[in-house]
Amino acid sequence: MNRSLLLDEIQEQPAALRRLVDTEIKQFIRLAHTLSTRRYQYVVIAARGSSDNAARYAQYLMGAMLGLPVALATPSLHTRYGVHLRFEGALVIGISQSGASPDICTVIEDARSAGAPTIAITNHPESALARAAEFIIPLHAGVERSIAATKTYTTQLAALALLTLSMANDSAGLATLATIPDAMEAILSLDARMHDIARDMAGATAAVTIGRGYHYATAWEVALKLKELTCVVTEPYSAADFQHGPIALMRDDFPVILVATQGAVAEDLSILTSRLRNLGAHITAISDVPAILDIADRPAPLPVSVEERFAPMTAIIAGQLLAFHLARARGFDPDDPRGLTKVTETR
Amino acid sequence: MNRSLLLDEIQEQPAALRRLVDTEIKQFIRLAHTLSTRRYQYVVIAARGSSDNAARYAQYLMGAMLGLPVALATPSLHTRYGVHLRFEGALVIGISQSGASPDICTVIEDARSAGAPTIAITNHPESALARAAEFIIPLHAGVERSIAATKTYTTQLAALALLTLSMANDSAGLATLATIPDAMEAILSLDARMHDIARDMAGATAAVTIGRGYHYATAWEVALKLKELTCVVTEPYSAADFQHGPIALMRDDFPVILVATQGAVAEDLSILTSRLRNLGAHITAISDVPAILDIADRPAPLPVSVEERFAPMTAIIAGQLLAFHLARARGFDPDDPRGLTKVTETR
Repeated sequence: MNRSLLLDEIQEQPAALRRLVDTEIKQFIRLAHTLSTRRYQYVVIAARGSSDNAARYAQYLMGAMLGLPVALATPSLHTRYGVHLRFEGALVIGISQSGASPDICTVIEDARSAGAPTIAITNHPESALARAAEFIIPLHAGVERSIAATKTYTTQLAALALLTLSMANDSAGLATLATIPDAMEAILSLDARMHDIARDMAGATAAVTIGRGYHYATAWEVALKLKELTCVVTEPYSAADFQHGPIALMRDDFPVILVATQGAVAEDLSILTSRLRNLGAHITAISDVPAILDIADRPAPLPVSVEERFAPMTAIIAGQLLAFHLARARGFDPDDPRGLTKVTETR
Repeated sequence: MNRSLLLDEIQEQPAALRRLVDTEIKQFIRLAHTLSTRRYQYVVIAARGSSDNAARYAQYLMGAMLGLPVALATPSLHTRYGVHLRFEGALVIGISQSGASPDICTVIEDARSAGAPTIAITNHPESALARAAEFIIPLHAGVERSIAATKTYTTQLAALALLTLSMANDSAGLATLATIPDAMEAILSLDARMHDIARDMAGATAAVTIGRGYHYATAWEVALKLKELTCVVTEPYSAADFQHGPIALMRDDFPVILVATQGAVAEDLSILTSRLRNLGAHITAISDVPAILDIADRPAPLPVSVEERFAPMTAIIAGQLLAFHLARARGFDPDDPRGLTKVTETR
């Protein structure tokens, strides 16, 4: 098979995560200590693209572990409507691979001017975003050359987990997180299976991805990879939102990519899987839940199970491999998605 | 043409809005006064489906007019992960046509137990949601019999505008809002134009809708109507997010439905429209911006212009008419979308 930058970077993810944990663990504990001296009651996260999907993960993780509501910022309010939001009581986080998107920087600048604690999570600690924020969390992912983000996405998830676990004083959680790179290595063995599923899906023109809870982020990120790399129109849903209207789309052989791992929402997803089968959908399941894998048309059984709160870092690798192979199966170059550049500067 | 419940309800919208404004204006001013005695620094809104799109409107309106960050709730944290979020400093709003969705009720109950001021916006003031909240805003939309929400969506937008304007003591804004039903009447005259565009789009299988700022909500709601009624896989985007990856989907004749009215983001949308044309997209523009209408393949010129902050109540009517006619053009019954029921009880 031809070499691919994207595939190399997918495979680099366990090493990138290890590097982040090893290099920064003490800084996270120090930052959590500093933050504990500041007053905030909720979190605002500004991000776009894959980084916004990392923010969706934080909504669940910070909600569950810290009891904090997490808002996703609306950057155009700042850049286009000239609004200076009151950030009283907010902890404000900007997430950006490049740290270069002017709109994300503007949100952080506004929040810092308002006196809120601000954190930049970026792979470029010298970037404008890093300079704008009071605190910097560098991703240590190494240069990401592919246009489609992979290792910067999973290190963003890990950075948010390290931050949250440190803020929650959860040393058992931090110890478990340190084992996630090994689990990621195991998921890479799904490569051949995702290749086969991709070949089988090559004729698809549209698809939906479905997740719930922690995997709401995974559903969004799998959909984004498919849109960027394969030109399959793929929309992400929470299992609940999907039933408020979009389920009307389901008809014979409509491709559904379901991401569901063991935990609090597994039963919901299992029930929905049956319902979708009855409506005629064609289901690919990235899962470690036997009841779901059994009824899926194209099961992608995850070879290892991890705690639900960390599963977005492992399950997404199966989705990345699917997008990579589907791009090739459909005749696209995964290293050169059309119409995209690495750094997107929106204002 | 055969009669349709849905079309009747689309046409009832100006009357429904007038009824809401006339009946409740004093209650809104009273509620705003009561809220001014409570302490909150941000807003959380729990909603699903069309109601969640109304919440997206509130993110911009409350942000711009009150300086308050608005978070969209993550109901599964409450119902599936057993989390009791700290709602310190939050004003919490539940929006639901039926007021019956258990997950939305749970968020409001949790917030009320935590001592936060809570508001239910619902067409059913005797519902579980109304009982759960401290304050009730009834929509007065009359019974909505169609499965696809139309008049409950626009009255939700109006209720959020009445609340926000009252909280901002903006009596000029309240006076302008009272003229919006007349503008909505004028938009109904686009019916024949949307019929023609629908006939032209009948063969589409996928589409995207694009809006920014206030019309981010409109883009989502048009996409939801298209999914519910026409089986066209339609994904909504902000103009900015669209450039962070999904723009890779654009190829020859890909249908794009753009919603852009005069105001702060009109120039961004105009630039994006040109870029999409160059990439080969086929653009339907619901707009009153000459530069955008001029380059669109299928212009739908709005016959009246209103203040940008109120335009989501008028422009959506063009989108509803498009979805109605496209359903018929594709052989579906707009009064009986497949797989859907009026009240969706997610948990």
